[in-house]
Amino acid sequence: MCGIFGCILASGVPPGCLASIANDSLTALQHRGTESSGLVGTSGKDNDHFDMVRGKGLVRDVFNEDVLKSTFNESIAILGHNRYSTAGMKDAINCVQPFVVHAVVGRVAIAHNGELVNVASKRSEILKRGVGLSTDTDSELIAQIISKAIADHVRSDNSELGDISKELETVMEEVDISYSLLVMTYDRIYAIRDRYGNRPLCIGTLRPGANALKNAQNGSGQSAPFGYIVASESCALPSFAKFDREVRPGEIVEITRTGIKERYRSARLPTPAFCIFEYVYFARSDSLFEGQQVHRVRRECGMRLAKEAHIDADIVSTVPDSATAASHGYAQKSGIPYEDVLYRNSYVGRSFIQPNTELRQSSITKKFGVLTQNVSGKRVVLVDDSIVRGNTMGIIVRLLKQHGAKEVHIRVASPPIVHPCFMGINIPDTKDLIAVNKSLEDIAAEFGADSVQYLSVQGLKESVQRGIEASKYPQVGHCMACLTGEYPVDPYDF
Amino acid sequence: MCGIFGCILASGVPPGCLASIANDSLTALQHRGTESSGLVGTSGKDNDHFDMVRGKGLVRDVFNEDVLKSTFNESIAILGHNRYSTAGMKDAINCVQPFVVHAVVGRVAIAHNGELVNVASKRSEILKRGVGLSTDTDSELIAQIISKAIADHVRSDNSELGDISKELETVMEEVDISYSLLVMTYDRIYAIRDRYGNRPLCIGTLRPGANALKNAQNGSGQSAPFGYIVASESCALPSFAKFDREVRPGEIVEITRTGIKERYRSARLPTPAFCIFEYVYFARSDSLFEGQQVHRVRRECGMRLAKEAHIDADIVSTVPDSATAASHGYAQKSGIPYEDVLYRNSYVGRSFIQPNTELRQSSITKKFGVLTQNVSGKRVVLVDDSIVRGNTMGIIVRLLKQHGAKEVHIRVASPPIVHPCFMGINIPDTKDLIAVNKSLEDIAAEFGADSVQYLSVQGLKESVQRGIEASKYPQVGHCMACLTGEYPVDPYDF
Amino acid sequence: MCGIFGCILASGVPPGCLASIANDSLTALQHRGTESSGLVGTSGKDNDHFDMVRGKGLVRDVFNEDVLKSTFNESIAILGHNRYSTAGMKDAINCVQPFVVHAVVGRVAIAHNGELVNVASKRSEILKRGVGLSTDTDSELIAQIISKAIADHVRSDNSELGDISKELETVMEEVDISYSLLVMTYDRIYAIRDRYGNRPLCIGTLRPGANALKNAQNGSGQSAPFGYIVASESCALPSFAKFDREVRPGEIVEITRTGIKERYRSARLPTPAFCIFEYVYFARSDSLFEGQQVHRVRRECGMRLAKEAHIDADIVSTVPDSATAASHGYAQKSGIPYEDVLYRNSYVGRSFIQPNTELRQSSITKKFGVLTQNVSGKRVVLVDDSIVRGNTMGIIVRLLKQHGAKEVHIRVASPPIVHPCFMGINIPDTKDLIAVNKSLEDIAAEFGADSVQYLSVQGLKESVQRGIEASKYPQVGHCMACLTGEYPVDPYDF
Amino acid sequence: MCGIFGCILASGVPPGCLASIANDSLTALQHRGTESSGLVGTSGKDNDHFDMVRGKGLVRDVFNEDVLKSTFNESIAILGHNRYSTAGMKDAINCVQPFVVHAVVGRVAIAHNGELVNVASKRSEILKRGVGLSTDTDSELIAQIISKAIADHVRSDNSELGDISKELETVMEEVDISYSLLVMTYDRIYAIRDRYGNRPLCIGTLRPGANALKNAQNGSGQSAPFGYIVASESCALPSFAKFDREVRPGEIVEITRTGIKERYRSARLPTPAFCIFEYVYFARSDSLFEGQQVHRVRRECGMRLAKEAHIDADIVSTVPDSATAASHGYAQKSGIPYEDVLYRNSYVGRSFIQPNTELRQSSITKKFGVLTQNVSGKRVVLVDDSIVRGNTMGIIVRLLKQHGAKEVHIRVASPPIVHPCFMGINIPDTKDLIAVNKSLEDIAAEFGADSVQYLSVQGLKESVQRGIEASKYPQVGHCMACLTGEYPVDPYDF
Repeated sequence: MCGIFGCILASGVPPGCLASIANDSLTALQHRGTESSGLVGTSGKDNDHFDMVRGKGLVRDVFNEDVLKSTFNESIAILGHNRYSTAGMKDAINCVQPFVVHAVVGRVAIAHNGELVNVASKRSEILKRGVGLSTDTDSELIAQIISKAIADHVRSDNSELGDISKELETVMEEVDISYSLLVMTYDRIYAIRDRYGNRPLCIGTLRPGANALKNAQNGSGQSAPFGYIVASESCALPSFAKFDREVRPGEIVEITRTGIKERYRSARLPTPAFCIFEYVYFARSDSLFEGQQVHRVRRECGMRLAKEAHIDADIVSTVPDSATAASHGYAQKSGIPYEDVLYRNSYVGRSFIQPNTELRQSSITKKFGVLTQNVSGKRVVLVDDSIVRGNTMGIIVRLLKQHGAKEVHIRVASPPIVHPCFMGINIPDTKDLIAVNKSLEDIAAEFGADSVQYLSVQGLKESVQRGIEASKYPQVGHCMACLTGEYPVDPYDF
Repeated sequence: MCGIFGCILASGVPPGCLASIANDSLTALQHRGTESSGLVGTSGKDNDHFDMVRGKGLVRDVFNEDVLKSTFNESIAILGHNRYSTAGMKDAINCVQPFVVHAVVGRVAIAHNGELVNVASKRSEILKRGVGLSTDTDSELIAQIISKAIADHVRSDNSELGDISKELETVMEEVDISYSLLVMTYDRIYAIRDRYGNRPLCIGTLRPGANALKNAQNGSGQSAPFGYIVASESCALPSFAKFDREVRPGEIVEITRTGIKERYRSARLPTPAFCIFEYVYFARSDSLFEGQQVHRVRRECGMRLAKEAHIDADIVSTVPDSATAASHGYAQKSGIPYEDVLYRNSYVGRSFIQPNTELRQSSITKKFGVLTQNVSGKRVVLVDDSIVRGNTMGIIVRLLKQHGAKEVHIRVASPPIVHPCFMGINIPDTKDLIAVNKSLEDIAAEFGADSVQYLSVQGLKESVQRGIEASKYPQVGHCMACLTGEYPVDPYDF
Repeated sequence: MCGIFGCILASGVPPGCLASIANDSLTALQHRGTESSGLVGTSGKDNDHFDMVRGKGLVRDVFNEDVLKSTFNESIAILGHNRYSTAGMKDAINCVQPFVVHAVVGRVAIAHNGELVNVASKRSEILKRGVGLSTDTDSELIAQIISKAIADHVRSDNSELGDISKELETVMEEVDISYSLLVMTYDRIYAIRDRYGNRPLCIGTLRPGANALKNAQNGSGQSAPFGYIVASESCALPSFAKFDREVRPGEIVEITRTGIKERYRSARLPTPAFCIFEYVYFARSDSLFEGQQVHRVRRECGMRLAKEAHIDADIVSTVPDSATAASHGYAQKSGIPYEDVLYRNSYVGRSFIQPNTELRQSSITKKFGVLTQNVSGKRVVLVDDSIVRGNTMGIIVRLLKQHGAKEVHIRVASPPIVHPCFMGINIPDTKDLIAVNKSLEDIAAEFGADSVQYLSVQGLKESVQRGIEASKYPQVGHCMACLTGEYPVDPYDF
Repeated sequence: MCGIFGCILASGVPPGCLASIANDSLTALQHRGTESSGLVGTSGKDNDHFDMVRGKGLVRDVFNEDVLKSTFNESIAILGHNRYSTAGMKDAINCVQPFVVHAVVGRVAIAHNGELVNVASKRSEILKRGVGLSTDTDSELIAQIISKAIADHVRSDNSELGDISKELETVMEEVDISYSLLVMTYDRIYAIRDRYGNRPLCIGTLRPGANALKNAQNGSGQSAPFGYIVASESCALPSFAKFDREVRPGEIVEITRTGIKERYRSARLPTPAFCIFEYVYFARSDSLFEGQQVHRVRRECGMRLAKEAHIDADIVSTVPDSATAASHGYAQKSGIPYEDVLYRNSYVGRSFIQPNTELRQSSITKKFGVLTQNVSGKRVVLVDDSIVRGNTMGIIVRLLKQHGAKEVHIRVASPPIVHPCFMGINIPDTKDLIAVNKSLEDIAAEFGADSVQYLSVQGLKESVQRGIEASKYPQVGHCMACLTGEYPVDPYDF
């Protein structure tokens, strides 16, 4: 789960504005990764040089205005990446993306969202041909595949990089899933999505002076494009941009200063397997996938959940903030009024270790204040979007009961997670998944709740798919492997 | 608007736990002030020495666990303060509270929330007796009043501080309003509230092992108190504390290791003037004032607003997050369904200056993503808690309209702010208040909204006062000067 | 031991250059104090406002160019202070000087070098008149004395500060020793030296375009002064300044934009008691006191030491870098060649605690590398400027012996320190002074040295005084209390 | 010019102490590189994992005690590197060494001092075989050469790294000069020096409990070694270590937990070309090369210079601190007394840009205070170790003359630098070298000096070589390419 972003200015547009656009778009994609952030720019003139600012932490910590603006003052194209927090890497400075590599005829920058399912065999293959690898990242493997493909195609020492879409096809040949990929050379950007469309990626046009949304409605008389933009989610498009379309599964799109071109579309297209958890949890609620806003899907999940798992209660509520849409959907469908039960303190920092165990408060207790007068004497339906480990829910339930809740019923707006993910989602070992090998009664008992119910797999699938317009999206399919164990590509083959 | 906090351990309780309690409570009070934070501790043994950690920034930035724990390892009482951001002080290191002063027979630490209405004349009086002042803060004036009172009472060089409640009465004689005040000497803490009760202050008891809320219900057989706690709001009480009561207007409460005592209650008690904006905006929604939870009052305001300012519409919504309670109240009373219209990006940092004006996005646009599919074609009632300058609202309305909103009706769950505050609220010059000298139509036009309505003064007053239990709070009164111009004390007298 | 500095621009000179001058001068005075640094500026227009930048750490850490230049862009006068590191103050933010105080008719900034001998009685007196003190610093006491004097002189509310030299005389009346003091009001600076002249203070003129030194030689035809400067030592004068003179014991000098004036000279002038340790150790070797360069005096001490404490040896050397001048003097006089024996690593940071005691190196060992081939088989005279605790010397001697030194003879270019200082020098408890109650043989044994000899009191006195030109400095006298126990003012009187 | 360091604990010695040893040794090597610092450790158990702490800045800034100790708590071997500051790399995080690479059967860490003379052709060769390179460093090229060699030797997937000395020979085959190289695998360290011995590298043994130097003298009955250490210079050996020997030109030494073994010595050994500037300027004066202490050589250079370039003068002095040894040598030989003329302020930070050009002081002026009374009226011989650009010397000469120096004669204790270096020394373009195409008279004029003389090439060579014991160092030779243009390997061949 990372956020990727690229932008290229149209021919004739002077450089100078990309630092600001990039900063805003990466900020809008911050929810997809908070470990590190990086930007790589090119002036369009030097085959062999990129400018870079990369570091650990949030966008606002890594990027200083002065540094960013002076670094990318001459850039006509820029690539950005927010990295998802992964466990264990203490000295991760080499892992900050975009990954930049010098191939035989010039530099290539790579921003990757996803996880290569055949990573182990690919890595071994590359090592065996005598390449030393400096990181454990998938991005470096992709970089080496591309570098090799470029070297294999080069005929003379005077070659220039130019169009490398042929070389990029090699990535699609060698790796099935999962990647949404941006590749930048000194004068262009490629946007690539694996043949399953597992991770999102969309394209837009910068059209200042003609508001994006208005244009979307009347479709006519637009000003000349100012530039082109690609990003993991549509929420990263600035207000002066027009959402164009999603990159299609198995497609290689080339974006130059003169426009956007499909350079390649795989002939071998399996049933799509777009990660359903983008809808359930990862994506921003204002992003659009397959023509529908994520918030709507979440609300729909809440409504289906109300039908599938009704219970008599006084109020419907949620643990702020991620399941608000689902809980409102549940409230609406069930006719039970929505009411806040928890205040969330956004300032909470690290907890100290208390020398006196009696005085220890859990960090959950510090993070949430209970709205006692809303809870006391009430039967509460508490809606959450998903439950992975279930560490928090028990504490919340106890807290509500201490403040007088008569009953607490947990309703989860997605099915139980019972299988690992090999395509980029940080799901823990199955032994740590609370839903594995446990009855609903056991889970309720563990939480101290009066009941627990999940949305069915069918209910989630229908909530997601019913709003997709068939004429625009003829091929629809979602990866639900973590819920069903049915993987688009067998992970145990590698 | 600052947050103040104090805690003292009961006799026999060993020191070592106050760093953690203080860190948690100040974090819970962070919303009351984010400019700086400070803690002052005493070992109960040395009349002449306090330990301190103070600095600029958020609680989580100022307080490092190791430093805090080693500094307050021997403390039996501690005083804390979060400072509200005020304009203009570049070198504000001397302004970080608690303010510590050496008086003739020992140290005194002061944490103050409020603003002295007669600050100018008090300051002049103190300067004229030859005291040099090192800050521009009210806290230093209070410190000098107390120091003088202590010096005037001292009879010999061998005096100890002991009970200084007599000296603290001087503060109440010399200053009418406004202050909630904590004063710590080497072995005790005083909690003082001005005679109008303008700023909040409450007291609780630490009772680990016996959960606070359960105790509140059964009232029986409690364990011995572990310590005593005072704080601006009840939300700062840890989960193992029991809310005891509010400090009364005109009261001086002494808290020692053996218990809580009223040392003084002013005989001259005017109608209370508790700041109504604590209910409207400042306080955390899970705090209790006058026996009622703030969230309830805000919901009630929304309901009254629905009655006073009804409009036909498709959805009710809000600008996240402060007016959620009011908007839900409005939705419930009006029967119009609640629906989210904006996604709020909590990661937003500083905006860069864009060299290209066409590409400039307002920082508001970056902070909020629009849920287009919830807005498009809809008549929206947008509820806010209050409007001061009105800088944001116009941008939000335009954003919603760009995304297809058919109508946008602003409903404000409090009356127009039209007068300055001299009692601690950072209200700008009246010329910057949008509601001054403007008709509702003018304001709507400025926002690009289809209508604007405010809650009436009477509506607000009733929303606040109807839920206060008369038997427990026989005297009730609220300062609404910024709405009505009726000040508890004439600010132009000084 | 602190460093103080002030500068005021001549009439007609536009502001804008003081940030840079102040930064350079405080950097030149860094050796006098490294705990904190501060600058306070005035625009010459606002009786009631100073601009400030103050913080903990070195000059280069506290002062950022952008901040400093924007803060003091309009300043026509500036006051600066480097604070000496003192033990024990954890939360020392209030102690950063210059100390700024609001007196009845305007602000006053104070920069102080020294220690008030009657601090306890002064403090008590001030507290008893009901003033609360916010720091433990002498500067605040001085500020309160001045504030009181100003308040006592004020006749009406419309007074302006103007000339406050009369009020400053109060300081000289109330405190005997020791202070070199700079006091700034909104339009002028006062330079004050106690009646004993215990701490240094000198005055210069900024004369860009006419080099200071050349002018000093020909004395003629100088350009108009650009500004006036006061500083603890002449080394703080920029290259475009001309050294003017030292402030005289018991003198109050007023410096305005139009020039320098003696406003007061005490009639009651005791024998001067200029701290002899400024010559021995504190001051920079290129500074001038009483007409002579400190380096010369140190060299002279080394020469006298060679006469008083001769020993046959192969080389003379030193522990770099403070005693270089003395060791060269010793070498020259004794005829024994000078040779380096230690390399000093200026990068040394904090030492880690080694889990394995056998592998522990002392931090001294890390700081110094031994020039084995210069030491091996040699009889070494090791010259140091002074020995206080003697913690380092034993380790150095052992190190030299391990590297083959045949003999090591310690020669100290000042007498044994055997008494405490109450006038600003951080001398430890007498029990920690190595020379107290120990024979030279005992000390040598403790160091593992073959002999130890100190310069005599008479030798030091003559070394210092013989180079002072009697016509220019008719009254000469030095405080040698830490060596002899003869204090200029009896410290036990208070 | 970098500093490299490695340490491995002897069998049976428990881990836990390497963090402290590494921190001290890298601090001792700080003068060889201040841009960045890094440490890589191995537990000896995991073929595939290293622990790392690396960052930009000084050793004391990069390494925090807690982090270092917890990171390397289990390490039995450690590799360290200080990187020399090179121009232009804004985003240099990938360039921090040691460079770690994953080769086909395990991780390899590389610390390199030097510069590959055939870097361009090597780089091109590697790129052409399809390897993508992520940095511009020589270290990565070495890493790829080693990775390829390992892959070429691997026979099966179950191989372990084990002894890779055969693979490391490839480096020596493919690159002539210049490198001193440390290569660590999971259980051992290799120390390699190019066939010319261009960069220094020495080996020692940790023997706590038996002082290194004492042992060196009696040679007998030592305790069992605690561990083995390799470092650029002997000054990096801790006090409890015994200097063993230098790594020989063309040698590959393997260091395991059981001892030190020569694994390979090139049969093809050209005349040695040890960089003579290590003696002149780079190395610490207490380090030993070829059996002699650097300080002695520098002193000898000063003495030869006195013979070659005598001048009548009153004093000999230097610009502190690098040429102290040479100036003392000059003084001794010439019979002219040594005297300090400049005080060096070690606190100097960044200079501000002065708005007023008349008030601008050069940063040199701020860094040095003149000892006027030592200079005034004197004829001064000013000795420097070397002059590259000559930017500073002119300012110093003018400063001395302003302070009254009658004559200033520059004497340089090494010959004129007139050719570029391709082997790791950051010598500027020849056009920026002051000695190129200029007569001594021109240079003197440019400095405002009365004369300038350099040491002859022959004089330098003899100063360096005469102290080397022929029996121990039968083959002696030094690279003086920057002085003579005679390169050990023709740099224009590649």
